[in-house]
Amino acid sequence: MRVIVVGATGTIGSAVVAALSAQHDVVSVGHTSGAIRVDLASIESILQLFRTVEAFDALVCAAGRAAFGSLDELKDADFQIGLSNKLMGQVNLVRIGRQYVHDNGSFTLTSGVLSREPMKGSASISMVNAGLEGFARAAALELPRGIRINVVSPPWVTETLIARKMDPSIGLSAATVAQAYLAGVEGTVTGQTIDPRTFATGQRG
Amino acid sequence: MRVIVVGATGTIGSAVVAALSAQHDVVSVGHTSGAIRVDLASIESILQLFRTVEAFDALVCAAGRAAFGSLDELKDADFQIGLSNKLMGQVNLVRIGRQYVHDNGSFTLTSGVLSREPMKGSASISMVNAGLEGFARAAALELPRGIRINVVSPPWVTETLIARKMDPSIGLSAATVAQAYLAGVEGTVTGQTIDPRTFATGQRG
Repeated sequence: MRVIVVGATGTIGSAVVAALSAQHDVVSVGHTSGAIRVDLASIESILQLFRTVEAFDALVCAAGRAAFGSLDELKDADFQIGLSNKLMGQVNLVRIGRQYVHDNGSFTLTSGVLSREPMKGSASISMVNAGLEGFARAAALELPRGIRINVVSPPWVTETLIARKMDPSIGLSAATVAQAYLAGVEGTVTGQTIDPRTFATGQRG
Repeated sequence: MRVIVVGATGTIGSAVVAALSAQHDVVSVGHTSGAIRVDLASIESILQLFRTVEAFDALVCAAGRAAFGSLDELKDADFQIGLSNKLMGQVNLVRIGRQYVHDNGSFTLTSGVLSREPMKGSASISMVNAGLEGFARAAALELPRGIRINVVSPPWVTETLIARKMDPSIGLSAATVAQAYLAGVEGTVTGQTIDPRTFATGQRG
């Protein structure tokens, strides 16, 4: 399959690329690096992405910005970042990309466990993640030609926790998280929120 | 208690006003009618609302626009209506109103069962409803002074179904739906999505 990976250089994205590359033709898309780039906050940029890449079988998005902060800290613009970038950016990848994807193709997007397991400071991120999951549940009902859509909801990733000098034992490795994206690309489910923790075997998470 | 009801003239809002009025001092707020009005899509209008109403004990919002339509029909502007009005409008009632609400006060907002039970054409509404529920789950963790936040997720309302000449048997009466808002105002729960169908007794729903 020809699989577009948006956010290919990120912690999760690079693990997804590694996992897909054995069996699929991966088109890596970055934001500020790489040959093919996209700005999720820009409809024009997304249109240009698909004009460049043309037909494909699956798209994975492991990118999307949203602001973390308390209700006291989050300004209007901080809420807007999440709405424009992580939420509508991924929604627009589907709205526009569905015209380029082959029959029985798929979209596998990224939310995060804060949607169902919030913490102080996650009001904007929890909103955006939950909104994306709601979109996918509904969009799955009407995508034509066997096209599927799912959202992976990653927990903390071990590599990220280590980079931030946080306790890595609460996380899942990026390689394990990548298995959830593979399930989105290669599986048959649609409209689902996929929790990578269900792919952990013998690993704490 | 002094309870602000935004959307006081709507099908659900008027039933909420009726249910609250026996025991509480209700401040009715409309969009295009009534003495006190607010445009949910405008931060300035929301600021003006709270400057006018001043301190209160509870706010109910039974208003908020979002566009119904297939992925083929929904334009960028249609998605934006739901994000600006039903989603961020209600979020902004909390962000601004929390500075005016008394200790142990509450916010009771409105999503809709399409968040968890989508249908064809609900992609934008399901997104907005689910996003609001995610926001409430997170915001509940950090609201100070005993302030609570909940979201009521109404099913189809009988009166609306009759007005649209649809089968009313699948709906709940507005009076039953209003009981869910009363639970938000008078109860102790926070961070919850309240399904009015759990308040139906002997009524099909």
